[in-house]
Amino acid sequence: MLLDKKIPLKYIANKVKYDLLVVLLIGLVTNVLTQKSFRYLPEMPLSIPAFLGTAISILLSFKMNQSYDRWWEARKVWGAIVNDSRSFVIQLQSLLGRDETDLIRKLAYRQIAWCYSLGQSLRGLDPVEGVGHLLSETDQSYIKTHLNKPLALIQLNARDIRDLRSNNRLEIFPHLQLDNTLVRLVDAMGKAERINGTVFPATYRHFLHFIIYLFVVTLSIALQDVRIIFEIPLLLVISVGFFLIEKSAYHLQDPFRNRPSDVSVTAIARTIEINIRQLLNETDVPEPAKPNEFYIL
Amino acid sequence: MLLDKKIPLKYIANKVKYDLLVVLLIGLVTNVLTQKSFRYLPEMPLSIPAFLGTAISILLSFKMNQSYDRWWEARKVWGAIVNDSRSFVIQLQSLLGRDETDLIRKLAYRQIAWCYSLGQSLRGLDPVEGVGHLLSETDQSYIKTHLNKPLALIQLNARDIRDLRSNNRLEIFPHLQLDNTLVRLVDAMGKAERINGTVFPATYRHFLHFIIYLFVVTLSIALQDVRIIFEIPLLLVISVGFFLIEKSAYHLQDPFRNRPSDVSVTAIARTIEINIRQLLNETDVPEPAKPNEFYIL
Amino acid sequence: MLLDKKIPLKYIANKVKYDLLVVLLIGLVTNVLTQKSFRYLPEMPLSIPAFLGTAISILLSFKMNQSYDRWWEARKVWGAIVNDSRSFVIQLQSLLGRDETDLIRKLAYRQIAWCYSLGQSLRGLDPVEGVGHLLSETDQSYIKTHLNKPLALIQLNARDIRDLRSNNRLEIFPHLQLDNTLVRLVDAMGKAERINGTVFPATYRHFLHFIIYLFVVTLSIALQDVRIIFEIPLLLVISVGFFLIEKSAYHLQDPFRNRPSDVSVTAIARTIEINIRQLLNETDVPEPAKPNEFYIL
Amino acid sequence: MLLDKKIPLKYIANKVKYDLLVVLLIGLVTNVLTQKSFRYLPEMPLSIPAFLGTAISILLSFKMNQSYDRWWEARKVWGAIVNDSRSFVIQLQSLLGRDETDLIRKLAYRQIAWCYSLGQSLRGLDPVEGVGHLLSETDQSYIKTHLNKPLALIQLNARDIRDLRSNNRLEIFPHLQLDNTLVRLVDAMGKAERINGTVFPATYRHFLHFIIYLFVVTLSIALQDVRIIFEIPLLLVISVGFFLIEKSAYHLQDPFRNRPSDVSVTAIARTIEINIRQLLNETDVPEPAKPNEFYIL
Amino acid sequence: MLLDKKIPLKYIANKVKYDLLVVLLIGLVTNVLTQKSFRYLPEMPLSIPAFLGTAISILLSFKMNQSYDRWWEARKVWGAIVNDSRSFVIQLQSLLGRDETDLIRKLAYRQIAWCYSLGQSLRGLDPVEGVGHLLSETDQSYIKTHLNKPLALIQLNARDIRDLRSNNRLEIFPHLQLDNTLVRLVDAMGKAERINGTVFPATYRHFLHFIIYLFVVTLSIALQDVRIIFEIPLLLVISVGFFLIEKSAYHLQDPFRNRPSDVSVTAIARTIEINIRQLLNETDVPEPAKPNEFYIL
Repeated sequence: MLLDKKIPLKYIANKVKYDLLVVLLIGLVTNVLTQKSFRYLPEMPLSIPAFLGTAISILLSFKMNQSYDRWWEARKVWGAIVNDSRSFVIQLQSLLGRDETDLIRKLAYRQIAWCYSLGQSLRGLDPVEGVGHLLSETDQSYIKTHLNKPLALIQLNARDIRDLRSNNRLEIFPHLQLDNTLVRLVDAMGKAERINGTVFPATYRHFLHFIIYLFVVTLSIALQDVRIIFEIPLLLVISVGFFLIEKSAYHLQDPFRNRPSDVSVTAIARTIEINIRQLLNETDVPEPAKPNEFYIL
Repeated sequence: MLLDKKIPLKYIANKVKYDLLVVLLIGLVTNVLTQKSFRYLPEMPLSIPAFLGTAISILLSFKMNQSYDRWWEARKVWGAIVNDSRSFVIQLQSLLGRDETDLIRKLAYRQIAWCYSLGQSLRGLDPVEGVGHLLSETDQSYIKTHLNKPLALIQLNARDIRDLRSNNRLEIFPHLQLDNTLVRLVDAMGKAERINGTVFPATYRHFLHFIIYLFVVTLSIALQDVRIIFEIPLLLVISVGFFLIEKSAYHLQDPFRNRPSDVSVTAIARTIEINIRQLLNETDVPEPAKPNEFYIL
Repeated sequence: MLLDKKIPLKYIANKVKYDLLVVLLIGLVTNVLTQKSFRYLPEMPLSIPAFLGTAISILLSFKMNQSYDRWWEARKVWGAIVNDSRSFVIQLQSLLGRDETDLIRKLAYRQIAWCYSLGQSLRGLDPVEGVGHLLSETDQSYIKTHLNKPLALIQLNARDIRDLRSNNRLEIFPHLQLDNTLVRLVDAMGKAERINGTVFPATYRHFLHFIIYLFVVTLSIALQDVRIIFEIPLLLVISVGFFLIEKSAYHLQDPFRNRPSDVSVTAIARTIEINIRQLLNETDVPEPAKPNEFYIL
Repeated sequence: MLLDKKIPLKYIANKVKYDLLVVLLIGLVTNVLTQKSFRYLPEMPLSIPAFLGTAISILLSFKMNQSYDRWWEARKVWGAIVNDSRSFVIQLQSLLGRDETDLIRKLAYRQIAWCYSLGQSLRGLDPVEGVGHLLSETDQSYIKTHLNKPLALIQLNARDIRDLRSNNRLEIFPHLQLDNTLVRLVDAMGKAERINGTVFPATYRHFLHFIIYLFVVTLSIALQDVRIIFEIPLLLVISVGFFLIEKSAYHLQDPFRNRPSDVSVTAIARTIEINIRQLLNETDVPEPAKPNEFYIL
Repeated sequence: MLLDKKIPLKYIANKVKYDLLVVLLIGLVTNVLTQKSFRYLPEMPLSIPAFLGTAISILLSFKMNQSYDRWWEARKVWGAIVNDSRSFVIQLQSLLGRDETDLIRKLAYRQIAWCYSLGQSLRGLDPVEGVGHLLSETDQSYIKTHLNKPLALIQLNARDIRDLRSNNRLEIFPHLQLDNTLVRLVDAMGKAERINGTVFPATYRHFLHFIIYLFVVTLSIALQDVRIIFEIPLLLVISVGFFLIEKSAYHLQDPFRNRPSDVSVTAIARTIEINIRQLLNETDVPEPAKPNEFYIL
């Protein structure tokens, strides 16, 4: 997640450098074609690029909307994970017997591991890295055989809860209540995977780029009478605005790519760990995640 | 689902070839009417097509929005199917006795079959093709008499769960908990059918096309003084932008038509199969679905 | 629901014939006032109607959005009715004893009758027409005294379920589970009635029409120098675009008016009947509803 | 709620009379400043007001959207109240013993009183006016001490249900089922209060008015060459369009102010009364609420 | 929350003073560059700033939308807190024994404390200030060790409810019902924290500002022929409109910052306190929160 700090120019420039080069090239070529005593280019009334610019704003606005919605939905899903992780532990403490603290700790640690593991798996990183100390050896070897590690972790929690019940240490109703919480966690996991795995309609993006370039070409032709020292910067600043917004949207729409604009799943998982450990009355809790220069992951 | 890869030009060109031909024709006819010493056409101030172009962007933006929402809703429904299929199996393992593994497998396989069958039935394909090995002979002959195969499969699962209960192998509360999951699956099925069976307001599309052509005609008249070698390409590139976006929207709005832009229901069903088989501790799981050239179905 | 077929021109023309006559009149009057040697009309810069046209597109887009949302919400409500009707029967079969088939049929038939009756009552038609054969004589005479027939039908189902329970043929938990389904059906009914009974802010529509006419007047004045043979058709085609979209929106916003653009509640109720009858293992099921020329009701 | 009838011009004119006077004044002052041989005013290119007009449409569209959403949400909340009131009575009849008809009537009447009382309290009217005959004397004196009368009524219903249970006339599960319905009613009440008590961002409205006036000023300057007999009416009709839409939005956004554009809570409460009385098998039900001239409250 | 009162000009001016200074500077610099006999600046057709102005309106409209949605979502969350706090107390009174009034009071007071504490913690203020009299000493020292005080308070309520159950003063089903309410409260808390902790995509804001300044620069160049005494005010009033709306959006998007535009969490918590105390039949209730000059916190 990008913080509300000064965002380095380098980060922003990096996003659009290739597009700006193309715009620069278009400006120069147009200039050559018009200035060099032969005039290859037609008169272009300014209303053509002006209306194209309006059209781009509208289409960009749609894109920004949907991308923002995906990002916000992803953030909501992780918000639900925070809530259900907390509720899960409070429910365990409330519904299980007072002498089940060991089991509660085991389930709670697995829940913490699930959060870290899901975050890393969404980002395409190793889903078991750094969660070893939260899991027993048996657990670790069990999930090794599974393609979807977080799903296997939930299955293990469900299994332990069933065993409690088989041993008559849990009644059927609290069992079902905990089952409801697990269902919600499976839901949240699936929702995050859905956002991660669904490609935003790719053609739309191509058409948008196409229209932005069309805008640049028509604008540069329309401005052929303006001196090149004013025309090129004008072309660049107007088009950089469009490209930057398009890139922002592009980055928002895939919020689990290990990029600065990601939903900060590691930091959220850390918050969950702190909350859960404090609910377990542990005093030795880790520090909240520290932001990088201008973002937090 | 179109992937984030290079989409073949042929695929894109195919979408709009007829519309472009019409635009080309309009451009030529306008030219003939103006150039041939007799001037049949009036002066057309450029603000007319310019404002029409803005209007088209706005109306297109509405269309894109609603189409995207249908597509995304369809994707959400299939996300819910993933989640509830997983939860269903985890619940069976958690709520049924430890010695019910055979029955759990039977129900889980039927659930896999349901996913494939629903996907094919939505696409208008044979809903029982390739699901035979997941179903018993009795099941196969039972669903044969039903118009809505997936609904019949859920009924069979509901029936088996009821029988468990009649034989006192299941208590009433887990019975109801599983019933809730079945209700959610019936919901998801009905939602996908709703999106599939509801025609997007057809008149809107016709009017939009009408206005795009009106734009092309007025623009070509307004540009009558521009040389034909510049005018025709300009007409084509501007209108192709509009037509492409309209076609994208058109394809998104019906996401179960066996087209490259479909929601990838077969691939999703495959993921569910892999997840469920691993939850059943099977080691022989199928491969994830492979994408075609630039899309996955 | 309008189908994705060729929609007869007559149907479309009927929607806007009065508005077009007014536009024609405005064009002619303007012409008379400008041509007849005396010039009553001022110079009107084209940017006035151009910006009005943009404004209309934006306001129209809002209207289209909200109208579409109402229509889609209505369709969703009927989708929920499909889902809960199916679930209701599956639940009856799953939760009631095996020897309750007669009662299950009675309740299921009443549910079918409820669907037809609700659809007709929303459309302002006779809510008991054609549902007689699905109800007992007692039922028919009971609902006769009620203003809201569908509500009375749900009450009858609730009553029969309670009687089951009083006679110890149903436990309390399945009773509550079925009650939840009835609550959802009451919800769906109320939602459809809400959409049907709530007038879309009427003033908005009037103001929109007012602005469209203002646009036509200013445009016709601005075009006073264009020959009448070009001006009038141009006025007509541009304004017909606006009026058609406005009319589409207007029809969408009230989806239960017995019009071609309605949500196809009769066809949906027929689908429910087919599904329920097949769930009851009946073989003699009715045909799916057949579409009319270009729509289905 | 405004009906789909002819809305009196007086009602509409009243909404914008002050704004129109200001516009008239601006037009006249501009005229004086330009015509009176001395020219105080600059040339104003028409594109300035034209783009401002477009900006206003866009900002107005946002406002219209959010206001409409508030109004529609308020209507949905009252739709939920209809549904839950009906369900509450059906549930009482289904879950309580057959000999509890007196108590059911008492609870049902209190529910009717709750609807009327909530509606009046939202509108800032006396929340107990006209509900006396639905409540016992004890009830009336109990709620007298409460600031929030509808909340007190729900507490009374909750208390009676608890007493049933203490006296073993109700099992725990139906108790919880009814509690769920009460929770939904508390939710609906709170949602309506939230919409009523939350001021729509006030600054936005001021800025919008500011921009509309800026538009009028620049437009009147830009049109200084048009004869005053055409200019003033043009200024008025364009600005009246904006002001009317802004006022519509303003009225929609606060739907419980005892205004013609309100959500018709009294009429809805009457419908609920009719439904509940018929569910109780009463034959002497009141008439549905009658609309006023062009609205219903 | 800003009230619907006269908002002091000072408050509004403060929001945009720096931006206006920059605009003033740009206007003067442009003037110097054009007037001083040497003409450094090119001809700038007015359609460039005009289309930029339209683009800004569109992009601003997106921003306003999302910011408003965040603010409204925050308000909804606090609405849910109102509802669930009320329901929690009604449920305690309905589900616990008649002789548990002391415990009910303890839990209810803790719930009031939770509301105040959550509000202050969201605003970055001391989360335990002023809630001491609502909590026992044990409670106060327990939450001292927790980073997240409101979460600790919910845990304490969950623990007391569990103890009730261990002592057989509460059945399992009411226990679960209350647990559901606690889960909803944990949800609401997490949602508010999510809105508070998630930075609105920061880059978008920078790009928007960038485009507004670009608009100002191009507009001031385009207006270089207008006399400075008209040009500068025109620049200022148009740009102030944009900046004010942007600032409104900026403030709305973070509704827990102890600013006048905040969601009024303290006033809401006070309302909850009054409602809960009256539900407990206390007569000595505090006054509703009083608004400041033009806002309420």
